[in-house]
Order: sequence, then structure tokens, then C-alpha cells
Amino acid sequence: MEASDLTGHISRRFNKDLEDLRSAVLSMGGVVETQLSRAIDAIVRGDSALGLKVAGDDYKVNNLEVSIDEECSRILATRAPAASDLRLIVAIIKTITDLERVGDEAEKIGFLASKLAQMDRPTDSYRELNNLGSHVSHMLRDAMNAFARLDVDEALAVIEEDEHVDEEYETISRQCITFMMEDPRTIKRVMNVTWAARSLERIGDHAKNICEYVVYMAQGRDVRHTHAPEEAESTDN
Amino acid sequence: MEASDLTGHISRRFNKDLEDLRSAVLSMGGVVETQLSRAIDAIVRGDSALGLKVAGDDYKVNNLEVSIDEECSRILATRAPAASDLRLIVAIIKTITDLERVGDEAEKIGFLASKLAQMDRPTDSYRELNNLGSHVSHMLRDAMNAFARLDVDEALAVIEEDEHVDEEYETISRQCITFMMEDPRTIKRVMNVTWAARSLERIGDHAKNICEYVVYMAQGRDVRHTHAPEEAESTDN
Repeated sequence: MEASDLTGHISRRFNKDLEDLRSAVLSMGGVVETQLSRAIDAIVRGDSALGLKVAGDDYKVNNLEVSIDEECSRILATRAPAASDLRLIVAIIKTITDLERVGDEAEKIGFLASKLAQMDRPTDSYRELNNLGSHVSHMLRDAMNAFARLDVDEALAVIEEDEHVDEEYETISRQCITFMMEDPRTIKRVMNVTWAARSLERIGDHAKNICEYVVYMAQGRDVRHTHAPEEAESTDN
Repeated sequence: MEASDLTGHISRRFNKDLEDLRSAVLSMGGVVETQLSRAIDAIVRGDSALGLKVAGDDYKVNNLEVSIDEECSRILATRAPAASDLRLIVAIIKTITDLERVGDEAEKIGFLASKLAQMDRPTDSYRELNNLGSHVSHMLRDAMNAFARLDVDEALAVIEEDEHVDEEYETISRQCITFMMEDPRTIKRVMNVTWAARSLERIGDHAKNICEYVVYMAQGRDVRHTHAPEEAESTDN
């Protein structure tokens, strides 16, 4: 084999490694999206068994994180990638941490669904949670699409969308306080609704984080924390 | 300059880069610890201005994260570190993400302190929040010490300690529900207490995460997600 063939061979192997890594992240994203959509279904349908199944399946997400993480370290150590390849790997290391935490929130929502299934059910089948859940599911899917296509415009759109999710969460959270004040017998149940809404809001934050890494990957530009300090706002109420 | 001198020179420069990076992480840890301790003080003393100051200072933590992150990428790109040096840098990239999120929780606690300062105050000056706050502050300090000394035993102790923090949080969370049921007029105020307790519990999680990276750095062993799936438990109630 001549030197140039060898170089070409190594470079093709390297590209294949990176391609496999990207596919693994997308497939982890798919698993997490399924977990989230089942967790929301479990709440809406009052399906306790489904909620517990989601919670019990979280280890699958964790295992994916560990194996992708190991592969990133292996590539960093053996290939010493530079420039955009290096940015890709750093972004993947961060992205899978956020995906794993989306998995944790889906696990929590699964447990909450199981509890809510055993309590009085409102006639609207938790429509607000369903709406917020659809909203953040879309954000997560768009974030993974932006990751797959390295689409900066889509990533920036998701980052903006997170503000609407925050507003929707604030509205639900205020409604929950009103319900509890009007009928204190609902407090235990409504607290579970509050926690589920909070978990969904967090998932929106993670989707936003992933999109910030996409911009960093594509442009080498860090768009995190670009708000001036005086614009800082609480997301709590 | 002879080749061996040059190698020695590069190696000394590299070690100095890594040492500076470690110091920067420890100093970021110090800033975050201060933010947390002020946020807790603001709750206990009912000091609205201090709470808002903590919230307003969060940008300092964010700026530290961005600059350390850039330095990690620079070292990865220019030095192509291997083995334990590579593990150090990967662990730092993750650690500063957790520290930044501890900063976010301190920011939230600052805002909550400011709201609580303007409401009726319990005679015990939020003793439970103070206790939980001291507990997680210790965890965070121990985590940063474990990081500084690469002390696996201390890291494992912090990881264990997180279970006690979770129990303490559960107790506070249950108490809050009882208070609200007994006196629905307290609901708005007590919800703020619940959110503050939740933020403190999250900080415990982040300290635990940092300790998991310390073990990975020291041993190249990933101790995350070592619980069997059947042991999975909700941290909500």
C-alpha cells in the first residue's frame, strides 16, 4: 500500500467513525423522543402501567450515553481530531448529557403519570400537560433534526421557541396554584401536575441547549449566555 | 535548542496549561459556592436585595464557563492530549456544565428569596431550607475538594451523601404539602419554599455528577448509572 493510499484509508476510517457517532446520537435521540411521548401518553390516558414502563426503561437511555461517551473519548485519543471534527465531538459529549437528562425527566413524568392515574381525573384529561408535552416534543424533534442536518437556522428557531414553552409553563403553574387555593383537597394531585409541567419545561431547556451546541458545531460560535445581565429573568413564579 | 530541550519545554508548557485549567475550574467552583451561600443567606435573613444581587451576578458564572470551555477546546486542538490528560479535559468540560447549572439554581433561589422576603415570615426563618442549604453547600465544597485532589474516596462519599439530601428534600416537600392543606392561604408562599427546596436538591445532584467525573478522571471508570433498573426510584412525591 502506498503512503497516499494509507492516508486515504485512515481518513475514510475516521470519517466513518464520525458518521457512526452521529448516527448513534440520532438513534439515542429517537429513544429519548419515544420515552417522552410515552410518558405524555401515560398521563393523558391515565395509564399507570405505561408510566412505570417508561420509568423502568430509563436505563436504556443511560447505557446509550455511556457507550457514546466512551466512543467519543476513544476517537479523541486515537484520532486527535482538529477544527470542525473536534467541535463535533465536543458538541456530542454535551448533547448526550442533555439527552440523558431528558430521559431522566421522562422517567419522572412516568412515575408522576402512574400516581395521577390512581387519583381523580379531570374531565379534560390533562389537556394543558398534553399541549405543553406536544410543544416540547416538537422542540426536541426539531433540535435533533437541526443536529442531523447541522441546520443553524432551525437551531436558532428552537432556541427562540423555548421562551414560548417557558410562558406556557408559567401559565400552567399559576393555574395550579389557583386550583389548589380554590379547592385544597386537590393539593396532592395538583402538585403532581405541577411537577410534570416543570419536567416538561426542563426538557425544553435541554432541547435549547442541544441547539446551542449545533450553532457552536456549525460556526464555532458560542451562543450561550448571550443575554445581558439586566435581561436576566426568573423562570419561577 | 536541542530536540530533548524542546520536548521538555513543550511538555512543561502543556503541564502548565493543564494546571491553569484546573485552577480556573476551582476558582469557578469558588464563585458558584459564594453564589449559593449568598442565596441561602438571602432566604434566611429575608434579604430581598441580596437575593436579587445573586440573581444579577449569575452572568459571572456563565462567562467563566464559556472561557474555560474555549480553553479546553484550544488544548484539545493544539496538544492532542492522551490517556489521563484527555480524561481530565473531558471531565472538566462536563464539570463546568454542572457548575454553570448550580449557578442557574442559585439564581433561581435568589429570585425566590426576594419574593419570600416580601411575604409573611415563619418564626423559624426557614430553618429546613437553611439545613438543606448547608447540606448541599458542604456536598458542593467536598465535590470541589475531591476534584482538586483527585480524591476518589471523597468523591464516592459525596455520591453516597446525595441519597440523604434526596430524603431531606422529600421530607420538606411533604411538609410543604401538609402546610398548604392545613392553611390554603399559605399556598403561594409555600410554593416558593417548595421551589427553593427543589433547586437545592438539584444542586446536590450536580455535586454528585461532578464526583462521578472525578472517579472517571482518576480511574478511567464510569460510575454513572450503576444502579440496576429495578432499583430505579422516583425522586418526586
